[in-house]
Amino acid sequence: MMKIPIVKNILRANENIALENQHFFKGKGLMVINLLSSPGAGKTTLLEKTIEMLNGKIGIGVIEGDIQSTLDSERIGRLGVPVVQINTEGGCHLDANMIKTALPDLNIQGINILFIENVGNLICPAEFSLGEDMKVMLLSVAEGDEKPLKYPLAFRESKALVINKIDLLPFTNFHMEKAKEHSLKINPKLEIFEISCYTGEGMDRWIQWLKILLISHLS
Amino acid sequence: MMKIPIVKNILRANENIALENQHFFKGKGLMVINLLSSPGAGKTTLLEKTIEMLNGKIGIGVIEGDIQSTLDSERIGRLGVPVVQINTEGGCHLDANMIKTALPDLNIQGINILFIENVGNLICPAEFSLGEDMKVMLLSVAEGDEKPLKYPLAFRESKALVINKIDLLPFTNFHMEKAKEHSLKINPKLEIFEISCYTGEGMDRWIQWLKILLISHLS
Repeated sequence: MMKIPIVKNILRANENIALENQHFFKGKGLMVINLLSSPGAGKTTLLEKTIEMLNGKIGIGVIEGDIQSTLDSERIGRLGVPVVQINTEGGCHLDANMIKTALPDLNIQGINILFIENVGNLICPAEFSLGEDMKVMLLSVAEGDEKPLKYPLAFRESKALVINKIDLLPFTNFHMEKAKEHSLKINPKLEIFEISCYTGEGMDRWIQWLKILLISHLS
Repeated sequence: MMKIPIVKNILRANENIALENQHFFKGKGLMVINLLSSPGAGKTTLLEKTIEMLNGKIGIGVIEGDIQSTLDSERIGRLGVPVVQINTEGGCHLDANMIKTALPDLNIQGINILFIENVGNLICPAEFSLGEDMKVMLLSVAEGDEKPLKYPLAFRESKALVINKIDLLPFTNFHMEKAKEHSLKINPKLEIFEISCYTGEGMDRWIQWLKILLISHLS
């Protein structure tokens, strides 16, 4: 009987700080995307390719969440966009207070879209709002097409699903139609992208979608 | 100041039940392996192939941990070995009490090795002992060779690392030597297997290792 109210308090406290963050983002006109996936599904590579393809036309900023290391923020930093690394030191997800604490270190001048790359974990990050406008999740085809059935929350909470590493499709038993069917059963409004960050296939539609979202966000 | 003692209490309570489980396993002569990995690294497929290759010569039992669904236990059940499914209903890892509660439903008659397939998550499961003899973790080459640097705890806690899906090596930028070097820096005693459950490559050494472990466990 002890654990449940404590967890609720944590979630409520998180929700309050998430609202503060949301208010801050709104005031600055930022569109904020919280990126979720298992470890190694390709979140950082998707960000790299997205930043390259937008080529400075849309201002991007990134908050990197990792248990430890600065590997991902170093990769993003090389592209010349503002980036802040959060190390959770064992924590399995980002929370709103971590974002609030990191924001003063991020140079948001000129940023249109702020990507928050969450800790690689298909479970816990989906439970914690950071104040973002939307969650977007990645699934690598190497992970298998039944993942929506086993980890439904992330699929339910996300606005878009990016199915990545489609260049590996010929070498796996991943059935694209099954994966989509399972995903849409959980979340019929889910926007689905089939991409390969490696070959670039499908990236145009993703970039186009981001641009349209940003236009509607700004208007 | 509130959260830390509460988390400690949970971990201590878990540790006590884990000791009970360990005592139970010991009494029954079971060798118990807690399998950890990200979603989709191939835990269930490794179990399927292991069960097939042991071909009834060593008795295997399986406890399957998933947030929801019985997909994995159905796959294992088809091979005719005793299996129990635990659904955590949102929980991001198995704990000792879940195992204790599931044990009466498992027919352990004739089992030599009990595999516990944890929830697909490279973070939280590594923090909770279930009373197992050892943790074994899987890493799929599709996840990337830098994962030990980003998720060190699972690598530190495991007795063996199974690097799976090596059939995908030609199509990824995964550097095997780097992955091993990073892993051994965290845990110099880590036994490392390079396998493909898909082609069967490397499975012989894994099976041999299990047999040797079991002999030393029984003697």
